[in-house]
Amino acid sequence: MKTVFSDTQLAHAPKQEISDGELKPAVEVPSRAEMVLETVKSRKVGEIVSPDDFPIRPLHRVHAPDYVGFLEDFWDKWLAAGRSNEAFPFVWPIRSLRQDIDVNHIDGLLGRYSMDAGTPLGENTFKAARASADTALTAAKFLLDGEQSAFALCRPPGHHAGFDFFGGYCFLNNAAIAAQYLRDYGLHRIAILDVDYHHGNGTQALFYDRPDILFLSIHADPKDEYPYFLGYADETGEHAGTGFTRNWPLPLGTDWDSYTPALEEACRWLLVYKPDAMVVSLGMDCYENDPISGFRFKSEDFSRLGERLKKVGVPTLFVMEGGYAVDALGTNCVNVLEGFAG
Amino acid sequence: MKTVFSDTQLAHAPKQEISDGELKPAVEVPSRAEMVLETVKSRKVGEIVSPDDFPIRPLHRVHAPDYVGFLEDFWDKWLAAGRSNEAFPFVWPIRSLRQDIDVNHIDGLLGRYSMDAGTPLGENTFKAARASADTALTAAKFLLDGEQSAFALCRPPGHHAGFDFFGGYCFLNNAAIAAQYLRDYGLHRIAILDVDYHHGNGTQALFYDRPDILFLSIHADPKDEYPYFLGYADETGEHAGTGFTRNWPLPLGTDWDSYTPALEEACRWLLVYKPDAMVVSLGMDCYENDPISGFRFKSEDFSRLGERLKKVGVPTLFVMEGGYAVDALGTNCVNVLEGFAG
Ligand SMILES: [Zn+2]
Ligand SMILES: [Zn+2]
Repeated sequence: MKTVFSDTQLAHAPKQEISDGELKPAVEVPSRAEMVLETVKSRKVGEIVSPDDFPIRPLHRVHAPDYVGFLEDFWDKWLAAGRSNEAFPFVWPIRSLRQDIDVNHIDGLLGRYSMDAGTPLGENTFKAARASADTALTAAKFLLDGEQSAFALCRPPGHHAGFDFFGGYCFLNNAAIAAQYLRDYGLHRIAILDVDYHHGNGTQALFYDRPDILFLSIHADPKDEYPYFLGYADETGEHAGTGFTRNWPLPLGTDWDSYTPALEEACRWLLVYKPDAMVVSLGMDCYENDPISGFRFKSEDFSRLGERLKKVGVPTLFVMEGGYAVDALGTNCVNVLEGFAG
Repeated sequence: MKTVFSDTQLAHAPKQEISDGELKPAVEVPSRAEMVLETVKSRKVGEIVSPDDFPIRPLHRVHAPDYVGFLEDFWDKWLAAGRSNEAFPFVWPIRSLRQDIDVNHIDGLLGRYSMDAGTPLGENTFKAARASADTALTAAKFLLDGEQSAFALCRPPGHHAGFDFFGGYCFLNNAAIAAQYLRDYGLHRIAILDVDYHHGNGTQALFYDRPDILFLSIHADPKDEYPYFLGYADETGEHAGTGFTRNWPLPLGTDWDSYTPALEEACRWLLVYKPDAMVVSLGMDCYENDPISGFRFKSEDFSRLGERLKKVGVPTLFVMEGGYAVDALGTNCVNVLEGFAG
């Protein structure tokens, strides 16, 4: 299996994040990707290739152009406003506030285009996020070229990023961009299976009204876990997409044995849907020692996950999402890939 | 003119706030109220009385009971979750996220009931906010008893607080609670004139569909200033309230001379509306030396503001809102009150 990766993705290097009412060291750090890359090399998963430079268009197929423009221009505007720290949004347009305003103020813009304050924006964030999206697109192209699987070593991750907002360490929704690209270049039915510990709210919302991209997600119950405001079992799609979204929110403390019934159910949906390709939003934060998560996967469970996904029997694009136990991240990730490769 | 005040309002004493991408010393501090109280005494504005203890009902006339319950229970839940710092929300339910979820997690709750991260919640916040609302209600009662004016020395302020969210240093919307109380106890037409530097988004939204409470606000253009997402000139009310909201967003750098045309226009609306009583959301942050604001009122301009409001000729309830140049806050505030008293 080919791995796609670019050093440019390391340029986004946040120092702090807002969490639990204070500034804490960031957990979505470049060493995550470095650790996975190292393990891909040492365990000989396959060739490692650099991403192609894609035009902006595949990003605009998923995200609002004004949002992409905001990300691109942000740091210059931030500096022009006399700021120099990492940026955190601190005001946001919820109920009774307008979301249709082109504000001038940089803090207003930050709030308009975000869903949390845990996702710092820095000087190189857009550059890294765009490289991460290019990585997903390049891997998607391998599938279009006939490969049966590919691994997009994406970082920063993507599945929380929505049509026009960042959050959850995510800026551009790599999995969604790749899925749309597969559609645009010839495939008819795409399934996205999100096995990150957190619900992929961005991905779900992007395809909520569409039958051509099935979205399945197994994750910690959002009543108890980020992103809190999406990912419930009663969300099953709308309009033409009715029935084409499925969520399995599971309780804190879930281990492999209590996870598998949901996984089996998701796999049955995949069997029924018969996708031309599957995009796996691959987070490793179900791991028992993940510092911000509450499931209890052991490292060997990730091998089983890979084996099970192989049996689905469709071309599969792995797009890396979360996972914050850096020391074990390479092992857990490559366990999935090796389990899949068999 | 009687002043209402309670020491309990000082119990909310935030230490830090999120602003410009970092934690900074809080500006909405107890000394604001102490400074105003001292000046009310030294310049002999009139009797200073303690607020009555009101039941919860007048709060529920304006705010969602579940929101009030959240504020009341918050600190216990926060401690139970193992936290001890001041609380800042860091994730919020904007576009494509659900606002109808009873989440369990304290961070989810914080996000559900807030509009910014600049408003820390602490151990005594609800106690102080409730005392502040009682202060406004007690002052409103003086109007119902026939006084021509009263001053509610409210703190924490209120005008950014909405039906079910806190923000902008505000938890309970004191001016709105007082206005609704005046309606509930016999007056038919209430005007709220908000002269705080910031738009009173909470107050506007609460009465946006009602003709019985006119809302007029003169403030810094939200394109350039908090709260960014409300307070534009095209917001004029809806349904039965159409025409009963008016906003005058003014550019940064506005001084008394460039402010007065808006003030005169607002006063003409008051003349046409003929309210039974007027509630003035009285912020002093138009002051030239305010640390977070961008208008250029001099201290003597606040006297003129008071004189002009007197000419409106209706019973007037002053409810204190913002103003963060603590040293001058007492002078500026009492200048309005003395200007009004003549
Ligand atoms: Zn995750
Ligand atoms: Zn203000």
